[in-house]
Amino acid sequence: MNRYSLNQATTKYWPLEDVVAASNKAGLYWIGLWREPIQEYGVERAAKLVADAGLRVSSLCRGGFFTATDEAERRMKIEDNRRAIDEAATLGTDVLVLVSGGLPAGSRDLDGARAMVRDGLAELAPYAGERGVRLAVEALHPMFCSDRCVVSSLGGALDLAEQFPATQVGVIVDAYHLWWDADVYRQIERAGERICSYQVSDWIVPLPVDNLLGRGMMGDGSIELRRLREACDAAGYAGPVEVEIFNQDLWDAPGQEVFDLALRRYLEHVA
Amino acid sequence: MNRYSLNQATTKYWPLEDVVAASNKAGLYWIGLWREPIQEYGVERAAKLVADAGLRVSSLCRGGFFTATDEAERRMKIEDNRRAIDEAATLGTDVLVLVSGGLPAGSRDLDGARAMVRDGLAELAPYAGERGVRLAVEALHPMFCSDRCVVSSLGGALDLAEQFPATQVGVIVDAYHLWWDADVYRQIERAGERICSYQVSDWIVPLPVDNLLGRGMMGDGSIELRRLREACDAAGYAGPVEVEIFNQDLWDAPGQEVFDLALRRYLEHVA
Repeated sequence: MNRYSLNQATTKYWPLEDVVAASNKAGLYWIGLWREPIQEYGVERAAKLVADAGLRVSSLCRGGFFTATDEAERRMKIEDNRRAIDEAATLGTDVLVLVSGGLPAGSRDLDGARAMVRDGLAELAPYAGERGVRLAVEALHPMFCSDRCVVSSLGGALDLAEQFPATQVGVIVDAYHLWWDADVYRQIERAGERICSYQVSDWIVPLPVDNLLGRGMMGDGSIELRRLREACDAAGYAGPVEVEIFNQDLWDAPGQEVFDLALRRYLEHVA
Repeated sequence: MNRYSLNQATTKYWPLEDVVAASNKAGLYWIGLWREPIQEYGVERAAKLVADAGLRVSSLCRGGFFTATDEAERRMKIEDNRRAIDEAATLGTDVLVLVSGGLPAGSRDLDGARAMVRDGLAELAPYAGERGVRLAVEALHPMFCSDRCVVSSLGGALDLAEQFPATQVGVIVDAYHLWWDADVYRQIERAGERICSYQVSDWIVPLPVDNLLGRGMMGDGSIELRRLREACDAAGYAGPVEVEIFNQDLWDAPGQEVFDLALRRYLEHVA
């Protein structure tokens, strides 16, 4: 229970104040936040709301999207990430989750796109370090490699992160994106102190038409969530475990119902 | 041109005799065959048709599907693979493509499922060797890990294949399934003489509702097909390059049109 964190994106249409109140009432210690609704609510106001409820922010999602077709776009994205670092610092979290971005339009240059991610990290890492925030590189499932995230495995995320101090750049272990990988347990061990968060949802089939919304509730799918959590623990990770599910049916259900179900399933399948 | 092979599954509804005639007329040397239509046509009859047209069979697709919920199902699948080896031998090809199968219904035991694949290979490899056929383990894209193929990367395929003599068990390098992997070029080098085939199609977005049919024509998507082909060559592979595209629009188009387009695109983007 003291490691559980519900990312607000799991109950997308539930107002922040309700998620915070429910988390407080359930005796939770953590909450995961999402940039857009927090910007809308007001970053400092959200920081106060969360702190007043006795909660800490497990992570802010998300920055990144470093791949770009020209220098102007690239600069704009770097500046946006600088703002994201500031927001994370204001919210009192040391984890800013980064999704790297897909191939630039019309490009097949995967190495080049990955180099853009590395260059973005290089520009931002010292600033993040100054603000007490770690840039947490998240590998997305390989089905998103072309259009969303050219970092497609934990090994690939670590290849990037290890070019920087561990205090500045780490990685996310998201079960949904990584579970299929025959190498994942070895890579979790390799990750060690770089692990910034363990995120959970489940793999269910068939994928929906919009495969961004294909994540299932823990226990409904194929992933050995507890085993992966134990592997993170064995690698030295002792921080929050964040539930992050994008699923239209869950979004359409009453917030409190999803909140209760997620907590119960976490205890059954992850803790 | 002397390495080009069209897998008949690319023109699924075109009769075998038409694909063979078109391949012969185009001066091709190879053709890729699919088990079900060949069984329907008659295996020995197909062998004669192909030989009379001066063609050789680049591969037979496909056996495998080793994962099972009980021993009776497992035995049945082993026997079916024995038949597939016989069919490959009759057709004169030394490559039988194997898709390993997904998680057994209701199971989350990925290691256990992969062990079933290893056990299946162990039972079949000596028999395949006797018949002059190599079992070619194909990693499918990780989005198929749960329901179709628990081998999700070239590294994972090699972990299995390397437990057996290279004359008996090899791997397929299919660009569609492997292109996203930051480790793929290192794994192709590792594969070396185990490479049984290089297969091409392209990654296009968005995925269709049935993601089994999401493959695009070479040149329409994100994959560096020539670079991957050159990597296979550098690893010592000099065999056929097989076009294998599952795409409803292409299946609905006239066979000769797809045949001509695939050959042109191969020359532009792969050869």
